[in-house]
Amino acid sequence: MKRKKIPDEAVQRLPIYLRGLLSLSQQGHKNISSKRLADFLGVNHWQIRKDLSYFGGFGTPGIGYNTEKLRRQIRKILKLSVVHKAVLVGVGYLGSAVLKYPGFGMLGFNIVAAFDNDPKKIGRRVGNIMIEDVSNLQALQQREIEIGIITVPCDAAQETFNKLIAAGIKGILSFSPCYKTGRQKVKVITIDIAMDLARLPYYITTRRITKV
Amino acid sequence: MKRKKIPDEAVQRLPIYLRGLLSLSQQGHKNISSKRLADFLGVNHWQIRKDLSYFGGFGTPGIGYNTEKLRRQIRKILKLSVVHKAVLVGVGYLGSAVLKYPGFGMLGFNIVAAFDNDPKKIGRRVGNIMIEDVSNLQALQQREIEIGIITVPCDAAQETFNKLIAAGIKGILSFSPCYKTGRQKVKVITIDIAMDLARLPYYITTRRITKV
Repeated sequence: MKRKKIPDEAVQRLPIYLRGLLSLSQQGHKNISSKRLADFLGVNHWQIRKDLSYFGGFGTPGIGYNTEKLRRQIRKILKLSVVHKAVLVGVGYLGSAVLKYPGFGMLGFNIVAAFDNDPKKIGRRVGNIMIEDVSNLQALQQREIEIGIITVPCDAAQETFNKLIAAGIKGILSFSPCYKTGRQKVKVITIDIAMDLARLPYYITTRRITKV
Repeated sequence: MKRKKIPDEAVQRLPIYLRGLLSLSQQGHKNISSKRLADFLGVNHWQIRKDLSYFGGFGTPGIGYNTEKLRRQIRKILKLSVVHKAVLVGVGYLGSAVLKYPGFGMLGFNIVAAFDNDPKKIGRRVGNIMIEDVSNLQALQQREIEIGIITVPCDAAQETFNKLIAAGIKGILSFSPCYKTGRQKVKVITIDIAMDLARLPYYITTRRITKV
């Protein structure tokens, strides 16, 4: 199958469909309508059909989608059908939470290395991972790791980003907005917790909000 | 000023502009062009102008925006000009990371309470917050807290969500996708770390990806 260019918004929704399909498959659904999947996920069914149409329709009228086949196809589109090795830098509370996150393995991610600059942490284990010294980050290049996860404080973010790029990392999931990517050919997805919280009050109607 | 309905996408970008304005203001910029702000944030300047046009233009031709005035206006639009009290449920690694996050106070958020179900954690302090017993969550109602932050494991998410709604919480920042909101009149913003990671490989070109 030739892969068409899919809009970013659709790519963003595909993992959500995948999660829904996984759950419904575990519940024993062999076939599923876009309506049922949409209800399960709380999204619009026309949106699902439109998003899936970008890479060819897999549904059968009256029966719907084959759950297992659609799951396989979405994994393939998202390149999740092979295991991706990832490295995490910054083993504070947030880094530890990410290292212990149960959902990554299911999606084909394997965090194989973790780095920190704190001598008290270096050499200790979090789960199966031994924390390494961040000054050895450049040695990553030999380890065929594609994905970097940045969970360092703001003031260490730029240096961490530069080092990960120098070590050949191709994609970054970052919890820090505090750096410039420049002209690097790297895909960066930023999770900025404060910015997500900051747009919440806009939607809240309350008498206690006063104009200033 | 009468507030127009702003598209969700623009609301999502306003906190990012706010962060840029804060930094540039700290660097001593009294006025700023949309181009300069855009370069600083790595976004399109036409996007900034378009987003700001939804709530009235504040720029002066040749001078640009008054940094302080624009900052105040965006805070007002986002209802960040008053302090919002928040409660966090689930003081694991992720919850601890959120409690210790330095960026919230600056945005007008004050996490005033934290709950957990682990007897070893209840009564202990994280920063200024004493961890309370989650079975007392319904008593929140008297404490005028508007915002809930959910950092519990998947299997506790639905119960936590229901209890927060029962306690009068109006908006939720959730790190768990594992529950149904039903017909509740509550705004939920979900940060699903695994789903953000899952769309990263799509953008990575590598010879090691093989078809399956």
